Amino acid sequence: MTARQLAVDPAPVRPGEQGTAQTQPLGLGAVQLGDGFWAARQLVNRGAIAQGHERLFAAGNLDNLAMAAGRRPAGKYRGPVFMDSDVYKWLEAVAWECARKPSDELRNQFDEVAGLVADAQQTDGYLNSFVQVTDAQRYADLAFGHELYCYGHLFQAAVAARRALGEERLWAVALAAADHVVATFDGGGNNGVPGHPLVEMALVELGRESGERAYAEMARTFVARRGHNSLSGHGRKPSYFSDRVPVRESATVEGHAVRAMYLAAGATDVVLEGLDDTDAGYLAALGAQWGHMVDTKMYLTGGLGARWDGEAFGDPYELPPDVAYCETCAAIGSVQWSWRMLLATGEVRYADLIERTLYNGMLAGVSQSGDKYFYVNALQLRGDASSDDHRHPAHGRLGWFDVACCPPNIMRTIASLASYVATEDGDGLQLHQYAAGTIAARGGEIQLRIATEYPWNETIAIEVEQAADLEWELTLRIPEWCGAATVAVNGEPMPVEPGYWRSSRVWQTGDQVVVSLPLPVRFTTGHSRVDAVRGCVAIERGPLVYCVEQVDLADMAVDDIELRAVHEAQWRPDLLGGVRAIDLEVPLPAVAVPYCAWANRGTQPMRVWLPAESFLAESRG
Amino acid sequence: MTARQLAVDPAPVRPGEQGTAQTQPLGLGAVQLGDGFWAARQLVNRGAIAQGHERLFAAGNLDNLAMAAGRRPAGKYRGPVFMDSDVYKWLEAVAWECARKPSDELRNQFDEVAGLVADAQQTDGYLNSFVQVTDAQRYADLAFGHELYCYGHLFQAAVAARRALGEERLWAVALAAADHVVATFDGGGNNGVPGHPLVEMALVELGRESGERAYAEMARTFVARRGHNSLSGHGRKPSYFSDRVPVRESATVEGHAVRAMYLAAGATDVVLEGLDDTDAGYLAALGAQWGHMVDTKMYLTGGLGARWDGEAFGDPYELPPDVAYCETCAAIGSVQWSWRMLLATGEVRYADLIERTLYNGMLAGVSQSGDKYFYVNALQLRGDASSDDHRHPAHGRLGWFDVACCPPNIMRTIASLASYVATEDGDGLQLHQYAAGTIAARGGEIQLRIATEYPWNETIAIEVEQAADLEWELTLRIPEWCGAATVAVNGEPMPVEPGYWRSSRVWQTGDQVVVSLPLPVRFTTGHSRVDAVRGCVAIERGPLVYCVEQVDLADMAVDDIELRAVHEAQWRPDLLGGVRAIDLEVPLPAVAVPYCAWANRGTQPMRVWLPAESFLAESRG
Repeated sequence: MTARQLAVDPAPVRPGEQGTAQTQPLGLGAVQLGDGFWAARQLVNRGAIAQGHERLFAAGNLDNLAMAAGRRPAGKYRGPVFMDSDVYKWLEAVAWECARKPSDELRNQFDEVAGLVADAQQTDGYLNSFVQVTDAQRYADLAFGHELYCYGHLFQAAVAARRALGEERLWAVALAAADHVVATFDGGGNNGVPGHPLVEMALVELGRESGERAYAEMARTFVARRGHNSLSGHGRKPSYFSDRVPVRESATVEGHAVRAMYLAAGATDVVLEGLDDTDAGYLAALGAQWGHMVDTKMYLTGGLGARWDGEAFGDPYELPPDVAYCETCAAIGSVQWSWRMLLATGEVRYADLIERTLYNGMLAGVSQSGDKYFYVNALQLRGDASSDDHRHPAHGRLGWFDVACCPPNIMRTIASLASYVATEDGDGLQLHQYAAGTIAARGGEIQLRIATEYPWNETIAIEVEQAADLEWELTLRIPEWCGAATVAVNGEPMPVEPGYWRSSRVWQTGDQVVVSLPLPVRFTTGHSRVDAVRGCVAIERGPLVYCVEQVDLADMAVDDIELRAVHEAQWRPDLLGGVRAIDLEVPLPAVAVPYCAWANRGTQPMRVWLPAESFLAESRG
Repeated sequence: MTARQLAVDPAPVRPGEQGTAQTQPLGLGAVQLGDGFWAARQLVNRGAIAQGHERLFAAGNLDNLAMAAGRRPAGKYRGPVFMDSDVYKWLEAVAWECARKPSDELRNQFDEVAGLVADAQQTDGYLNSFVQVTDAQRYADLAFGHELYCYGHLFQAAVAARRALGEERLWAVALAAADHVVATFDGGGNNGVPGHPLVEMALVELGRESGERAYAEMARTFVARRGHNSLSGHGRKPSYFSDRVPVRESATVEGHAVRAMYLAAGATDVVLEGLDDTDAGYLAALGAQWGHMVDTKMYLTGGLGARWDGEAFGDPYELPPDVAYCETCAAIGSVQWSWRMLLATGEVRYADLIERTLYNGMLAGVSQSGDKYFYVNALQLRGDASSDDHRHPAHGRLGWFDVACCPPNIMRTIASLASYVATEDGDGLQLHQYAAGTIAARGGEIQLRIATEYPWNETIAIEVEQAADLEWELTLRIPEWCGAATVAVNGEPMPVEPGYWRSSRVWQTGDQVVVSLPLPVRFTTGHSRVDAVRGCVAIERGPLVYCVEQVDLADMAVDDIELRAVHEAQWRPDLLGGVRAIDLEVPLPAVAVPYCAWANRGTQPMRVWLPAESFLAESRG
């Protein structure tokens, strides 16, 4: 680990020191993932990012910008109005990836595209290739125009590039655009509300990085304007936009799931900055909304959004596995919200959900090859399901989409994954996610090495490679699903309770902390109000949700299985690149594999929730 | 019964004698409903029809036509593009209602509105108030423009008025419009396909009534053009329009449920007319599609359409009770299709489904007061369900809708209900539905009187009031749900088998046939592939599906009930105007009431499918 890396330590979220954050993220400089589950995903993700430029060219995103920049003759704009956002998300992914592991090729692509974006920007800071190419009116349709949404992704990309690469060109574009937004929507008399949230958290982050308070204030204003039934259109009512009830007064999440998550993350960022009206009551309201979501509107995978209609949350306990929407972007938005709630509160439940969502709801959204994506992450695919909508899982993962929000969202999330692993505060270091690698805190005074084959195996060995010569607290998350965790320090067993395990001492170089998170196969039943999974069992092991695919069932349709017996997990190096698989009797022999790995042997019928009425009756009796 | 009534005998469907119909409907002249379940509904329906004119005025439908007719100054068109269709459906309802029981007031309203419609028609026969008032281009958007759909309702109204009232003015409008359609879409070079089917069956009927073969040929052409992926728009793919696969090649129904039902009914009408390509194979294909729908895509109530998204059929076995769409119009379309299939085949299954749908999926769509409507007929309303969509059952039945297709559809269906009761053929008379009243066949040579309190009580007493002096066959439907039916002729028990009971003899005036359809409480479980109702039981009695409403549960949420015991049905004159109710233990005491009567004591949580895991385990063990 070099001094440069530690000095920079790029991360997507960096709460201001004057704010209310309980703890601060460690970034890609401080946390480096070594060989293991996530590092393997980052490797294929790097390949996908390298293909991104070509994807954006083929889909027309870059041509749209080139026309806006006057580099190409005027022509037909291609794709939906928010095509620019895919470019920005990809730029953000490139930035994180280059921080993780430099690449001249990626950096050159970044500079080329950043130059294109800069050239497309108009002199007053306005930038939107759709409006510019089609000569549409600016901000004419805030509900569905997505101009502010695109700015949000621009700002996030610019922050990433500045933090990760010291980049200045996209940064200048972002500042000019942000000034235009503030001039238009704060001072300029436009009291509009962005139909698709995102700009809120992006403005806060831009404010953190630039020191310009007006950006966070603009974010606060956008959040405060929401919830007064001003948004509608295309048959969508205010609830679709999370615009029915002010954020602070909401008791739940509703409407379009991605919109709801991005808004909630932005509102939490506003709270983290300690802006007006952001007292403890506001944070408690967000926590209650989060809790209501997790208790009543979330799938076992962390997936969000029960309905295709409006890509939306359903009513409480409306959680059908087959027609689940569970957009990949909603899972990512959930991680972003939970991460900010964790920083604001230090509560373990947020880190628990991040783990569940990353391993299941998010990761199922990308193929093991790293370059094919699900838009929709259902928990069941029926044998006779059909759809002429290419988002439907029956079509398998695809390389790109007409609406291509998910692929570059996956790219940027996996590239920046190390920044969701650990935090530090005045007391010490908190380890929220377990992955092999190294972690530095206090500017490098503290260094840990993590060795683990998690989530396949239960042992996490943490070695203090460098210790500050003073007392500090090591905090380790004991996952909510683990009832039998043990922690030993230098061989000595320590008391362990659910939640965070903490030990404050003058740690010595060479100290060994061994966490054991036993990984028996677990059986999960749904809440009694979740009608869609009554009489069913889901199989989990550690953070992984399992499923049954047709290919592992010789003579029976997945649609007709009934669980009778479950055996222990076995390491199967031959299967899906190496997974722990679980033999079942349904009643014919079958194999359960991790849900995140489904649809990598062809797209086929699959179930997470297994009918198990007699199995359940026996386990009750 | 007067000679005039028999000479006219109006009915919505009158297959041509040169066609392939196995049997012919008896109409509103031949079948008269007496005091009983349906007569009571017809009484309140008459009141709703009388309010219809005011509804159409208030919603703007009549003003739209007045502007098109030049009777009002040009102004803003109001409502969706298919506002005219509501007017035509109401006119049809008025016609049937006046045939059922004359009314000067209704007849005057009819004439006034028919005059308005006639004045709005353009000289070349074109008629569409949206296009005329907004100066839009004719037939510019066949997928969503609904011009042909509106014609369809015009034709049906005109046929009804001519058959029921001998009306000629609307009839002339319909003929002129139909000639315009044929000139445009057959001879005129427009090879388009109507986005919303309906005109097909309406053209066939217009052809039957007018004797003009070109109309039925136009219908045949429209059906044949469908299924070649030519329809799309507003994000909807061809499957939404039943345009993915040609009708004859389809193995199932899919997409927008109302569109699918109206198309299937139209295709069946084409087969009934014996037009080209309409051989036995075509009829068999329609029968297979119908069977697949009933087996895999239909709710217990006969409700159709599992999805709000696209108001559409889901995949096979995707039948969630809570988010069921089950549009009232889809239930009505299903009755229309089944009726035509019954005429084409004489198979009892179609009459069975008509009964199930009328008593449940259709009837739940209207309040007991007759003037408030559900658009969506879910089989469950959660306690914490919320929606800002006024179609959602949480809003209760409403007097009218922005898209008001359902209310006048209910009106015309209930007014013409007598025409779905019985048919006649060369052998005799077939009784498909049981209701108190009188039935005449062979132009009045045969007359029956039916006395029954069905569906509350099991006895149906049929008296031959007039008998032709020759042998003829009496056919009586034994419902599929009835395993213990008995039939006695003049006190002598007869052998009974499932399906149709038939007896051919020289019936004598005064002969008594007593059908007994025992009505024990039945428990129904879902197909094992219907995940949404696993571990649940539905309660049925005779043709009625039952449900539990919150008001009948003192200290427990309907969301949390679990069925433990069921008692026999009791007549409760005090409840809901008089119903047989069923006492339950869930485990607290509760009462099940007919689903068709729900939401008449306030809109409240309700379930048809009752969680019953231990109840089921005991009944298995």
